[in-house]
Amino acid sequence: MASHDPHLDALIVPSEDYHQSEYVSTRDKRREFVSGFTGSAGLALVTTSDARLWTDGRYFLQATQQLSDRWKLMRIGEDPAVEIWISENLPADATIAVDPWCVSVDTAQRWERAFEKKQQRLIQLSRNLVDEVWKSRPPPEINPVIVQPLEFAGCSVAEKLKNLRDKLSQEEARGIIITALDEVAWLYNVRGNDVSYCPVVHAFAIVTPDLAFFYVDLKKISAEVESHLRENGIEVRDYGAVNSDVLLLASNELNSTIKGTQTKHLNDEKCGSMEIDLNKTGDGQAGGKDHDLIWVDPASCCYALFSKLNSGQVLLQQSPLALAKALKNPVELDGLRKAHIRDGAAVVQFLVWLDNQMQEIYGASGYFLEPEDGIHENKHLKTTKLSEVSVSDKLECFRASKERFKGLSFPTISSVGPNAAIIHYQPESSTCSELDPDSIYLFDSGAQYQDGTTDITRTVHFGKPSAHEKACYTAVLKGHIALDTARFPDGTNGHALDILARVPLWNMGLDYRHGTGHGIGSYLNVHEGPHLISFRPHARNVALQSSMTVTDEPGYYEDGNFGIRLENVLVVKDAETEFNFGDKGYLSFEHITWAPYQKKLLNLSLLAPNEIEWLNSYHSECRDFLAPFLDDAEMEWLKKATEPIAVN
Amino acid sequence: MASHDPHLDALIVPSEDYHQSEYVSTRDKRREFVSGFTGSAGLALVTTSDARLWTDGRYFLQATQQLSDRWKLMRIGEDPAVEIWISENLPADATIAVDPWCVSVDTAQRWERAFEKKQQRLIQLSRNLVDEVWKSRPPPEINPVIVQPLEFAGCSVAEKLKNLRDKLSQEEARGIIITALDEVAWLYNVRGNDVSYCPVVHAFAIVTPDLAFFYVDLKKISAEVESHLRENGIEVRDYGAVNSDVLLLASNELNSTIKGTQTKHLNDEKCGSMEIDLNKTGDGQAGGKDHDLIWVDPASCCYALFSKLNSGQVLLQQSPLALAKALKNPVELDGLRKAHIRDGAAVVQFLVWLDNQMQEIYGASGYFLEPEDGIHENKHLKTTKLSEVSVSDKLECFRASKERFKGLSFPTISSVGPNAAIIHYQPESSTCSELDPDSIYLFDSGAQYQDGTTDITRTVHFGKPSAHEKACYTAVLKGHIALDTARFPDGTNGHALDILARVPLWNMGLDYRHGTGHGIGSYLNVHEGPHLISFRPHARNVALQSSMTVTDEPGYYEDGNFGIRLENVLVVKDAETEFNFGDKGYLSFEHITWAPYQKKLLNLSLLAPNEIEWLNSYHSECRDFLAPFLDDAEMEWLKKATEPIAVN
Repeated sequence: MASHDPHLDALIVPSEDYHQSEYVSTRDKRREFVSGFTGSAGLALVTTSDARLWTDGRYFLQATQQLSDRWKLMRIGEDPAVEIWISENLPADATIAVDPWCVSVDTAQRWERAFEKKQQRLIQLSRNLVDEVWKSRPPPEINPVIVQPLEFAGCSVAEKLKNLRDKLSQEEARGIIITALDEVAWLYNVRGNDVSYCPVVHAFAIVTPDLAFFYVDLKKISAEVESHLRENGIEVRDYGAVNSDVLLLASNELNSTIKGTQTKHLNDEKCGSMEIDLNKTGDGQAGGKDHDLIWVDPASCCYALFSKLNSGQVLLQQSPLALAKALKNPVELDGLRKAHIRDGAAVVQFLVWLDNQMQEIYGASGYFLEPEDGIHENKHLKTTKLSEVSVSDKLECFRASKERFKGLSFPTISSVGPNAAIIHYQPESSTCSELDPDSIYLFDSGAQYQDGTTDITRTVHFGKPSAHEKACYTAVLKGHIALDTARFPDGTNGHALDILARVPLWNMGLDYRHGTGHGIGSYLNVHEGPHLISFRPHARNVALQSSMTVTDEPGYYEDGNFGIRLENVLVVKDAETEFNFGDKGYLSFEHITWAPYQKKLLNLSLLAPNEIEWLNSYHSECRDFLAPFLDDAEMEWLKKATEPIAVN
Repeated sequence: MASHDPHLDALIVPSEDYHQSEYVSTRDKRREFVSGFTGSAGLALVTTSDARLWTDGRYFLQATQQLSDRWKLMRIGEDPAVEIWISENLPADATIAVDPWCVSVDTAQRWERAFEKKQQRLIQLSRNLVDEVWKSRPPPEINPVIVQPLEFAGCSVAEKLKNLRDKLSQEEARGIIITALDEVAWLYNVRGNDVSYCPVVHAFAIVTPDLAFFYVDLKKISAEVESHLRENGIEVRDYGAVNSDVLLLASNELNSTIKGTQTKHLNDEKCGSMEIDLNKTGDGQAGGKDHDLIWVDPASCCYALFSKLNSGQVLLQQSPLALAKALKNPVELDGLRKAHIRDGAAVVQFLVWLDNQMQEIYGASGYFLEPEDGIHENKHLKTTKLSEVSVSDKLECFRASKERFKGLSFPTISSVGPNAAIIHYQPESSTCSELDPDSIYLFDSGAQYQDGTTDITRTVHFGKPSAHEKACYTAVLKGHIALDTARFPDGTNGHALDILARVPLWNMGLDYRHGTGHGIGSYLNVHEGPHLISFRPHARNVALQSSMTVTDEPGYYEDGNFGIRLENVLVVKDAETEFNFGDKGYLSFEHITWAPYQKKLLNLSLLAPNEIEWLNSYHSECRDFLAPFLDDAEMEWLKKATEPIAVN
């Protein structure tokens, strides 16, 4: 920083990679490298005299533990935002540097607006200062790109490109720069292995009305993949070439060099006038209209690429691929349903195994029974121990035994007692807790299968839950059911539905500090937009639409004591309502996650008859769907776990 | 228009008066005069070749009936907004005129932004062109201003001014221009009679850290009122003087001419330097800070006054009086509770009377009984008829007999059968329907009492309601109860709660096209912000807070058949929850409206046990609260109407 020209007063190190990803590869964990904080979200600020780390409520505790004395923790929501802090605390005319590849257009512009007040300046670094001092930075990963076949993708690249080009035409754009890794993978029907938990490839794409480019490390492309891409008219270029190609796109000179076009180019050399015609076509003049905009998603496009464009020619708008990807086609929905059944079977197998282990090792009364009063479990009947990490490894084994398993979809949250109150808890083998028959155990986990991505949370107790824990579990389940059974007019935003999952908790004066649902990918990212079920209104949050996926995951967290969360994946579908007021069409949900809720944790007197009916019906379907994947003992256990509750 | 210089291509005639009021006096009904359309909301556009009227869904039917062939109806929500229509249909460089006193800053600026695209220009007229052609325009109303005594206002003018000045200081403002009629009346503890249904005075106010002005037709001010104002340091000036005084405020030269300050002024004449000091004080330099802003509410301040200020010195922000007025003090709450009990008694007396009349005149089975199958009522046993207008007059009589009655709070919606499906139906004696024992009757009405404003809707049937009507009534009641019983964290916006009232309807594929709740005044406007319970997010909608009033009025409207609405007034209060997660504090509602729901219109099988318990408890309180105001026969009827329903 000291030797940089111009002089730098501060350096911002964001968590994100060049694609503004939520999960990044090891070599992109720059913020973790400089600060020591390993959480998934956060931002480091290094000034000439101090260092600060901003992170959100999920990570306050973890950051306190991981940051050295030289770092100050800034709590998002309580402390001023980084740009406000800078404008209030750094001198006028201060220079604040950032690698413009690691920050989105939205974020960088918000910072610049805040800095303006004191004539402070955001400097776009031409080299990453963290990388320069990170001696042991891992080398680039070279993982092969694979094709996601049509039997799972359900929609050809040709059709996706056609729909995208229709959108370009509608918006009078002559090109789009696609930077979100899952959008690139979805559009070209490819997958990869560059980022843990996310089957994506480090790549960019540029699509114009006539051309489509895929910017990727060429070493990752096999002959098979190259042929898949070529068949779809996609030209593969080196990852770094996006840099110069965006400049060419800006100046209207981005052309193809592959065969068909190449031939034309050869002709062009003979005919100058022809070249002009070809360029015109390349510009995206469809239907005689004068299309001159370049579409960039301000939330996912890095500031570096945006800055190469003339601001007057940029269409700053949510990428059309976000919604297109969220609207699952019938093949994807079918795959998701099947993947969730296999995944549910793995979860039940895990519960059966864990139930046995807890009884054998800790003398627990088990999943079904409460110990009688005065009779305590004999802890440690055997020398074996169960830890948060060892049981989550076992859960992974059950999943890995299932067809089409490709890996986990996010780090498993496997948490005992007070750890369950840490919403994004991630156990580490050296420090994690032991399972405890007297404590709640919460596990939030999911997997990548080639036919779909899963995400499920269940909360269980193998001993005697307290009346308070039961009341809270029941309230969380009531909210979970209320959202699951909602019907609502087409056009309703997930924000409006969020309250349904909270009402039973609010009645007790309880709440939870996270959203209620997120979209989930089709063998893609476990968190996917552009819709959300959230208590905060959000400008980018689009209305729920038929064939979207969304999770239903209310919770309750009592610091130092326990945490509860119940999560299913839902698919938005057309509702069968008696009427159709306003001809809007009404929507409802189909749950596709299958694993029992623990009846022992319920206070039945708090459930309404329709809630008990919902539970019985869900449990009955669990049996039907999971039976083919369970052995006799497992099925015996599941039957007991799903026995109907009598409705008064 | 033709003779105007500059040339005018179009004239916009808004519905609003100089104060952007919802209800305006007869002489301010300019839009009604030019268009013939009498609805409360709408905007007329007259171009050199055609005339168009914009209004919203409540009024489509009425506007179709009232507009002549020379007018084209523009449907808000379906057709483009007026400014979009102008920018798309009028030529470039077109001049569009409006009386800048009749349009808010927000609206005028939105228009100007839209017009910019084609270099169209908004012309601020210096004289109102409608007034010039309106030969029979009523003369200005001269209704005396009255003092709202402390026993009802609950908070002195001195305290209100102190709080307002604290806000000015916080926002570094040296003055505020108050234009909303209810804000002026509330701040100065005065009421008037200038606008039907709203006990307000046509007046402006300007408040600085040291001075307070009241701009009003001086003929309306009695000696008593003058002394009340003088005691509170308020200087009365003529209504028209606001014009020049805003200019003086802008240039920092607005001074007092009343006694205390007058004396100082005399001194000042002897000492120039003193004058500067005094001016400084007048500028609002509190605590040594350099306060230089003038606070203007962009939604209520007219463009005319705003345009007299330098844009750099304006603080465009919601008036602090909106929230201050919405947070009712204990005296106001006590008054509101009492007024609602008297009002409920009038409603019950009306129902008893109507029940008898319906049986006597039409042979109806009545409020309690359904006619047996095959037995039809004998319509018209007598020659007397009951009409929507005649029964609503009777309802007014019952109200007028109550203590502190001052008038109605809005035009009574008294509607039979299909008319009840017209949300803002207003019967007229010449055209209104006759009561019908085979149809639903919906009445939405309220009154102004000196201790509080009321607003209640009930829906009844004196014959045999259909199963469908019962199912719909029950769904509306379920939503009404769900909102009434909600508990929610402090800071929750009414927008988030709106869905609670809709869920039971959405379940059937039904909905209603209006918000669920609005604030209500304390002997002031029946519609009051700044909070709302609405399905649309709204930038100005503030979170619900303890001691606010808000209505709970879901409905269902079936065009051509019937309408249902149930409305109570609620007061936001601190909730007694078992826990207090996040130390946010939790809120709930207290209902203060008392009149029975008709059990005959219920399908009990659709009600949950807790809903039946709510109904029984509400009905039991109705009996207790209303008993002192009813005679024996009325009480007999009420007992029957409120008999507990058995909970299964």
